[in-house]
Amino acid sequence: MKGRKLLMIPGPIEFTPEVLQAMGAPTTSHVAPNFIAAFGQALERLRQVFLCPDGQPFIVAGSGTLAMDMAAANLVEPGDRVLVVNTGVFGDRFVAILERYGATVAQVRAPAIGDAPSLEEVEEALKGGGYKLMTVTHVDTSTGVAVEVKGLAALGRAYGALVVVDGVCAVAGEEMRQGEWGIDLALTASQKAIGVPPGLALLVAGPRAMEAFRRRKSPVGSYYVDWANWLPIMEAYEARQPSYFGTPPVNLIGALNVSLGQILEEGMEARSARHRRLSEALKAAVAALGMEQVPVRPEVAANTLTAPYFPEGVDRGVLAYAKEAGVIVAGGLHPAIKDRYFRVGHMGAVSASDILATVGAIEQGLAQVGYRFEPGAGLAAAQAVLARGT
Amino acid sequence: MKGRKLLMIPGPIEFTPEVLQAMGAPTTSHVAPNFIAAFGQALERLRQVFLCPDGQPFIVAGSGTLAMDMAAANLVEPGDRVLVVNTGVFGDRFVAILERYGATVAQVRAPAIGDAPSLEEVEEALKGGGYKLMTVTHVDTSTGVAVEVKGLAALGRAYGALVVVDGVCAVAGEEMRQGEWGIDLALTASQKAIGVPPGLALLVAGPRAMEAFRRRKSPVGSYYVDWANWLPIMEAYEARQPSYFGTPPVNLIGALNVSLGQILEEGMEARSARHRRLSEALKAAVAALGMEQVPVRPEVAANTLTAPYFPEGVDRGVLAYAKEAGVIVAGGLHPAIKDRYFRVGHMGAVSASDILATVGAIEQGLAQVGYRFEPGAGLAAAQAVLARGT
Repeated sequence: MKGRKLLMIPGPIEFTPEVLQAMGAPTTSHVAPNFIAAFGQALERLRQVFLCPDGQPFIVAGSGTLAMDMAAANLVEPGDRVLVVNTGVFGDRFVAILERYGATVAQVRAPAIGDAPSLEEVEEALKGGGYKLMTVTHVDTSTGVAVEVKGLAALGRAYGALVVVDGVCAVAGEEMRQGEWGIDLALTASQKAIGVPPGLALLVAGPRAMEAFRRRKSPVGSYYVDWANWLPIMEAYEARQPSYFGTPPVNLIGALNVSLGQILEEGMEARSARHRRLSEALKAAVAALGMEQVPVRPEVAANTLTAPYFPEGVDRGVLAYAKEAGVIVAGGLHPAIKDRYFRVGHMGAVSASDILATVGAIEQGLAQVGYRFEPGAGLAAAQAVLARGT
Repeated sequence: MKGRKLLMIPGPIEFTPEVLQAMGAPTTSHVAPNFIAAFGQALERLRQVFLCPDGQPFIVAGSGTLAMDMAAANLVEPGDRVLVVNTGVFGDRFVAILERYGATVAQVRAPAIGDAPSLEEVEEALKGGGYKLMTVTHVDTSTGVAVEVKGLAALGRAYGALVVVDGVCAVAGEEMRQGEWGIDLALTASQKAIGVPPGLALLVAGPRAMEAFRRRKSPVGSYYVDWANWLPIMEAYEARQPSYFGTPPVNLIGALNVSLGQILEEGMEARSARHRRLSEALKAAVAALGMEQVPVRPEVAANTLTAPYFPEGVDRGVLAYAKEAGVIVAGGLHPAIKDRYFRVGHMGAVSASDILATVGAIEQGLAQVGYRFEPGAGLAAAQAVLARGT
């Protein structure tokens, strides 16, 4: 670490040296042969990472919210009915975006913060019917709640809705098989499990989503995100032809191509298995230290982040001590419980030793604030899971 | 250059080592103290670079087109009348964006490609009246045409229109005094004279623009660019407070702060004078080599790029030879004359030796394709200008 703190927040994460090297490489022209090759390959690799062989990838300068904006603006027309499966702050955000483009939005909300609606509740809502679109937040970064995307996508499809998955805190960390599971559009941002500094919105749209876009009767509400502008560009670069709409973020796309290569080298199954195991290790440590978690039961807890409540008598002051001990974690984000919990991101290149370093720093922080616990209990619990192997 | 080609296109340009180092630095949290300090300082410096002491800066992940989109979406309401002073491809683009958000657009077009409308023509159009907004492309990257922004802004103001300047290929290269000249909003992208790899949309909105935004009766058409989302974030970071809407592009903003520091160290007057002198040197060389330029007279030619027509009997094949000789320039972009001209960008950290290297490479290319000219004539003409000093 050489004096640097370990960054264990739910994005931006720690990036690999190769990715950072690509970020700092002299910028080439956006029509230079080496950049055309990198952009084309990144588009192909994105399709592989999303496991969506017949999907149309989009790589655009912007944040994860821009990816949500692009999905909503291109798929929704004024008056369309949309069902939002809402598990936290980012469900609320999707509602706001969809309404901006004229959608009539209904929501299935979790019964409580930290919970997810059941498949039965979602099916009940879908029966109400006539939904053109259903959106699902795979992992809500604010609560650490993960939903059962496979089952939800099947339901959405069965009731004729296009299924949109906000995978910002999930893609390339959680298991997600876009094609096989019938997800019509999945999206993410670069700075999470994709492993690239923030600045890229990433989407893969399946054939039904592209068809819905082509059949639009009204223009797309926002100009910048209109697929009519971007589709020819993505097609051109994938065919290894230069093209121009807006100047692509050359360095970020170069870094993306490097990271996608590293992700595919690990393999999607191995990668989600690694995220699951490291998550289990951290969650075991959190439990051993006597902390509850925001997700109300293991089945609704994400593998990409952990959201522990502070134990009795401890507040966010403990995080400053953990930072002093070398590890940066994040505070709460959900307005209703903001000061009662914290968040640890464990995505991308994260390793077993990063998990142990994090548990160690949390233990040191807890000790500093006078919390009573058995020293080393968290580390031992994490180690027990890690020793099991995948 | 050590095996690298010199990139002399109108963006992305060559970036300084310090900027590239910031790009490749390990990413920090978007709420880390050092990042908050850098973001806050970048906002302050942006205001200084735009020479707009009472302006509200916005720094957002996206391309230059996103900056145009943000300007249009926040300032225009359905039915508003807008006058576009159109000097090329990017004037056409502003028309498309403005219409997307419901504006009724009138245009003052240049009498010919490579020309700019006169102040009289623009005033005539403004008299038609009732324009809420007037847009001007300071430098049209497609043609190398620059307009008289100061005079146009004064006219727009006189007739009660908000004046929006698309400064994508101009800000921090051409002289532009936003506050003094009465420009209500100016915008650019990072990869031009601002000197940062592509991926950032940059805007400074003056008090009248912010007031027009606050008085809106209808919601902003696009969600992502809505100032209601971004204004609290910019205000918070400038007050050195963390805040969150979308994850900011940490590395790009770090690099931006470095580059803005370098720009201000040079000084805005010295910087635009340097751009003018280097531009004159290249344009003198182009003329000495017997090439006409797209801008029909010196008064409408930009200082940030040069757009020469290929001489008789020469086509874009010459550019490959110039590249072999070490310098990359850009092909044509304006659809009507695309294959008849090329473009040389000279912005940002560009130096006198870069200009000479470029002229030398063009001479070598011209010799390779059998064009008859006096070898060294271009270099001598450039050198004569450069020797004059600022």
